[in-house]
Amino acid sequence: MAWFGRFVQLANVKNSARPTNPNHFLTSLSHFSSTAGPAPAAAVRSRQPNLAPTRPDEKPRVVVLGSGWAACRLMKGLDTKAYDVVCVSPRNHMVFTPLLASTCVGTLEFRSVAEPIARIQPAISTAPGSYFFLANCTGVDPDDHSVQCETVTDGISSLEPWKFKITYDKLVVALGAEASTFGIHGVNENAIFLREVHHAQEIRRKLLLNLMLSDVPGISEEEKRRLLHCVVVGGGPTGVEFSGELSDFIMKDVHQRYAHVKDFIHVTLIEANEILSSFDDRLRRYATKQLTKSGVRLVQGVVKDVKSQKIILNDGTEVPYGLLVWSTGVGPSPFVRSLQLPKSPGGRIGVDEWLRVPSVRDIFAIGDCSGFLESTGKPVLPALAQVAERQGKYLAELLNSVAKAGGGRANSIKEIALGDPFVYRHLGSMATVGRYKALVDLRQSKEAKGLSLAGFTSWFIWRSAYLTRVVSWRNRFYVAINWFTTFVFGRDISRI
Amino acid sequence: MAWFGRFVQLANVKNSARPTNPNHFLTSLSHFSSTAGPAPAAAVRSRQPNLAPTRPDEKPRVVVLGSGWAACRLMKGLDTKAYDVVCVSPRNHMVFTPLLASTCVGTLEFRSVAEPIARIQPAISTAPGSYFFLANCTGVDPDDHSVQCETVTDGISSLEPWKFKITYDKLVVALGAEASTFGIHGVNENAIFLREVHHAQEIRRKLLLNLMLSDVPGISEEEKRRLLHCVVVGGGPTGVEFSGELSDFIMKDVHQRYAHVKDFIHVTLIEANEILSSFDDRLRRYATKQLTKSGVRLVQGVVKDVKSQKIILNDGTEVPYGLLVWSTGVGPSPFVRSLQLPKSPGGRIGVDEWLRVPSVRDIFAIGDCSGFLESTGKPVLPALAQVAERQGKYLAELLNSVAKAGGGRANSIKEIALGDPFVYRHLGSMATVGRYKALVDLRQSKEAKGLSLAGFTSWFIWRSAYLTRVVSWRNRFYVAINWFTTFVFGRDISRI
Repeated sequence: MAWFGRFVQLANVKNSARPTNPNHFLTSLSHFSSTAGPAPAAAVRSRQPNLAPTRPDEKPRVVVLGSGWAACRLMKGLDTKAYDVVCVSPRNHMVFTPLLASTCVGTLEFRSVAEPIARIQPAISTAPGSYFFLANCTGVDPDDHSVQCETVTDGISSLEPWKFKITYDKLVVALGAEASTFGIHGVNENAIFLREVHHAQEIRRKLLLNLMLSDVPGISEEEKRRLLHCVVVGGGPTGVEFSGELSDFIMKDVHQRYAHVKDFIHVTLIEANEILSSFDDRLRRYATKQLTKSGVRLVQGVVKDVKSQKIILNDGTEVPYGLLVWSTGVGPSPFVRSLQLPKSPGGRIGVDEWLRVPSVRDIFAIGDCSGFLESTGKPVLPALAQVAERQGKYLAELLNSVAKAGGGRANSIKEIALGDPFVYRHLGSMATVGRYKALVDLRQSKEAKGLSLAGFTSWFIWRSAYLTRVVSWRNRFYVAINWFTTFVFGRDISRI
Repeated sequence: MAWFGRFVQLANVKNSARPTNPNHFLTSLSHFSSTAGPAPAAAVRSRQPNLAPTRPDEKPRVVVLGSGWAACRLMKGLDTKAYDVVCVSPRNHMVFTPLLASTCVGTLEFRSVAEPIARIQPAISTAPGSYFFLANCTGVDPDDHSVQCETVTDGISSLEPWKFKITYDKLVVALGAEASTFGIHGVNENAIFLREVHHAQEIRRKLLLNLMLSDVPGISEEEKRRLLHCVVVGGGPTGVEFSGELSDFIMKDVHQRYAHVKDFIHVTLIEANEILSSFDDRLRRYATKQLTKSGVRLVQGVVKDVKSQKIILNDGTEVPYGLLVWSTGVGPSPFVRSLQLPKSPGGRIGVDEWLRVPSVRDIFAIGDCSGFLESTGKPVLPALAQVAERQGKYLAELLNSVAKAGGGRANSIKEIALGDPFVYRHLGSMATVGRYKALVDLRQSKEAKGLSLAGFTSWFIWRSAYLTRVVSWRNRFYVAINWFTTFVFGRDISRI
C-alpha cells in the first residue's frame, strides 16, 4: 500500500476536487455519485433533455431527421437564437459523398470525407435545448406534432435500444434515399454499395484481402482471376469515378506493391444503357476512351442474378467476381415509403414549391427523400448533392424568416407569407475518369448550350471545386494533405 | 447500342491493349483470359509461388512468422541479395505500438501508426522468390524444415481457408505475445485490449457511442454514469498513457463537444500494485499527481470477475463501467506454448545468446515470444518494443554474415562462427501522463543511477523521440500533421 498511501497523501496535499480517501473512492465508485458538481440548472437540463411541447419561455424546436447534405446544410443555416435544433440520425457525421469513391483505394483517408455534425452546427452539442441523438426515427405523428425514435445500439448485446418521443414545432424530413436493387436477387447479400464511409471501408478491406489471398500458393489461376476481378454495376458518376480510381490504383500501386499478381487484376464496368448519361456526348466519348485506355472493360448488359462469386447477365453470360460494387442509382427507403404523407412521382415525400408537405402542418421534406408533387407542375429533381444542399439552404432561410415573423411555434405558420418558392438551377456536373482526367459539364440541362470540357483542366477544376466545397477547414486541410501524400508516397495499403 | 457501338469504334481507333469487340468482351469475361500479357517467366513465377526446398540456383529462403517490431526490423535488415524473404502473418502491417493509445481518442489517426510491411521490406511484394502471406502459422516441422499455414479469410463465408506448406532454410519465429487475463472470468468477452489497430478502433467507436447514448432522453442517471465510466485495468505504461489521453480528451473535447454529458464521464485506473513500477519513485509520484489532477481516479485493487456491465474487485466492490480497457501485461500465445521447442522461464520459446533455438536446426526466435534459456544464465528480457527491435536488428546482421560465410542453406550453419552474442542494453523508458506531460527515465535499470525527468521537457523529448522512431517518412509526416491538426482543430469525433 506504499504507493497508495503516498498517492492519498499527495492528493490531500494537492486538495484536488476528487475524493482522496480509499474507502471514499470505492464508495464513490459503487454509488457513482458525481464529483465535479455542475451548476444545478445546467445539471437538470443535462440530466433530462426536455422534449415535451415547447413552453412560451422556450425557443421553438426544429427537429431534423437525417444528417446528409440537405439536413446538414439546413442545420448550418438555422438561426439558433430563434430555434432549438434537435437532430436524429444513425450517423453522427455528414459524408462528403463526391469524394467517397477516392477513399476506397486510399487516395483519401476516410476521416477526410466525414464531417462531425457537432462541427457543422455546434449548438446541437452545447446549447441547452439542442441535441443530437444517435437514433433512427420509427414513426411520425403529424397531429401530435411528434416523432418516435429508437437508439442505435450497434449490435452491442449489453445495450437495450431506447425508445423515446420528441415533439416538434417544425419537422424537417431529410432522410435521403437508399441504393436501388431493382429487386434483383442477391444484390443486398453480395454487392457492396458506395453511399457511406463503412461501405468504402468494406470495399478497401475486401480489395486488399483479395490482393493478398490471390498470391497464396496452390490457388488456381481461375480462382486468382476471380478474386482479382472487380466488377462495378452502374455507369453513373459514382460508378465511373470508382472505376477510374480503381484502375488508377491498379496501374500505380498494385503494379508496384503487388507485383506478383498485377497481371491478374481487372476492372469491369457494367451499364445497361449509356455511361454518364447526364453528360454531353463529347464528354461521354472522352470518358469511354479514357476508361478503356486505363484498362477498364466497359460492358453493356443487364444483371439478372447475383451469386456469391459470380453475376449472371440477361444474355446468360456468367461473370465471376471477387469484388462487386453496386451503384445503380437510388430510391426512397422503406421507412419513407411507409410514411402516411402525400407522395411525388417515384414514391418520394411530396412537397410544394416551398418544400412544405401539404395536408399536414409544420412538416417539410428536403433532399433525396422528397420530390415536387405533380400538382406543382414541376419535375422531381435528381438525387444530387447540389439539389439537397440548395434545398437545405433555402429552407433554413425560410424557417429563419418565419421565426422572425413570429411563426416559429407549431400551428402558427399559416398566416405568414413564405416569400419566393424554391427554384433549382443546375450548376453543372463533374466527374473524374482516373488520373488527372475529369469531365466538367456546365450546361444547365442536356439540351441547353454551355461550357463543357474534359481533360487535365477539368481535373484541376474538379479538384479545386471540391476542395472549396469541403465543409470544414480541418477536412479541407486533410484532403489537400491526403492528395499530396498520395502523390508523393503512393496510396496506403495497410489493411486495418 | 449507340453508346456501345461508338465505344467499340473508339477503342478500335485507339487500338488499346484491351479487347474491343463486344463478343470478345464477354468471352474474355467468361474465360477470364489475361489480356495484358506479362513476360512468360515472370508470369510462371507469379502464377505459382515455389515454396519447395530451395534449389542451388535459388537464394536460400528465410521464413519469418509475425509482423511486429522484431519481425519487421529483421526483414528491414535482411540482405535480399543473399536471401529470399517469406513473411507469414494475419496482419499486413506493423503497428507502431507506442503511439497506439493516442489513436483511441483521435489524437492520432489509425493509419498514422500502421506501417505496411511491403514498405518496410519492398522485396516481399516485388522480388520473384519473396512473398507476404496473409495467414496464420498452424505448425512447425523442424525435421522437414517446413511450416504449415492457413490463410485468413476474415469471416467471409464465400472464402474457404487455404492450407499450404512453406519450406525454409532459416526460420525466424517472431509471433509476439498476447494479453494476459490471469484466467479471470469474462475478460475476453467484455474487455477491450490495446494491442492492435482494430482494438483502438473498437475503443473509439464504443467511447463515442456511449457519449451519444448517454444523452438520450429517459435514460437514468445511474445508467448514464455507467455508460460514461471508463475503466482501465493495469497501471503499466499503456494503461497510464491511455488514461492520460482519455482524461485529456474529456477535458478538451468532451467538455466542448458533449457539453450535455461532460459532468458524468469519469476515468478510473485500477492497478493491483504500483503504477509504472519500472519507473523511478520520483517519476511515479509525479505521474500519480498528474493523473489525479486531470481527474483520473486511481484505485488499488485486484479484479476478481468481469461481467458485461460491471467488474467485481477482490474486496467485493462492484464497479459499473461503460468501457473497459485491459492492459495488464502479456504472456505467450497458445500456439507458442503448443510448439514442441525448448522453453524459457515463463513459457516463452527458449533461445541461446545468439537467439537460436537449441536442439533444432535453423530456427531462431525473437521478440516477445522468446526468452533466454535458464542455461544461458541471463534473465528473460521484458516484453518491450525496444528489446524486440534490437533483437531483429541483431539477427538480421547475424543471418547476413552467415549468408556471406556460405551458411545460408538449411543444415549448413553449424561450422560457422556466429560472432558476438546478443547483449541487451536498456535505453530507458518513456510515458506520457496527459497533456504536455511525460516521464523520461534514462536509467539502465531500477537500481542504476542516471537521468530521470518529468514534465514538459520530457513530453517534448517523448514526442521528438517517437517521431524519429516512426518507421516511414510518410507516417512521420502524418503523425506530425495529426498532432498539428489536433492542436489547432481539436480531435475528430465522427464515429465512422
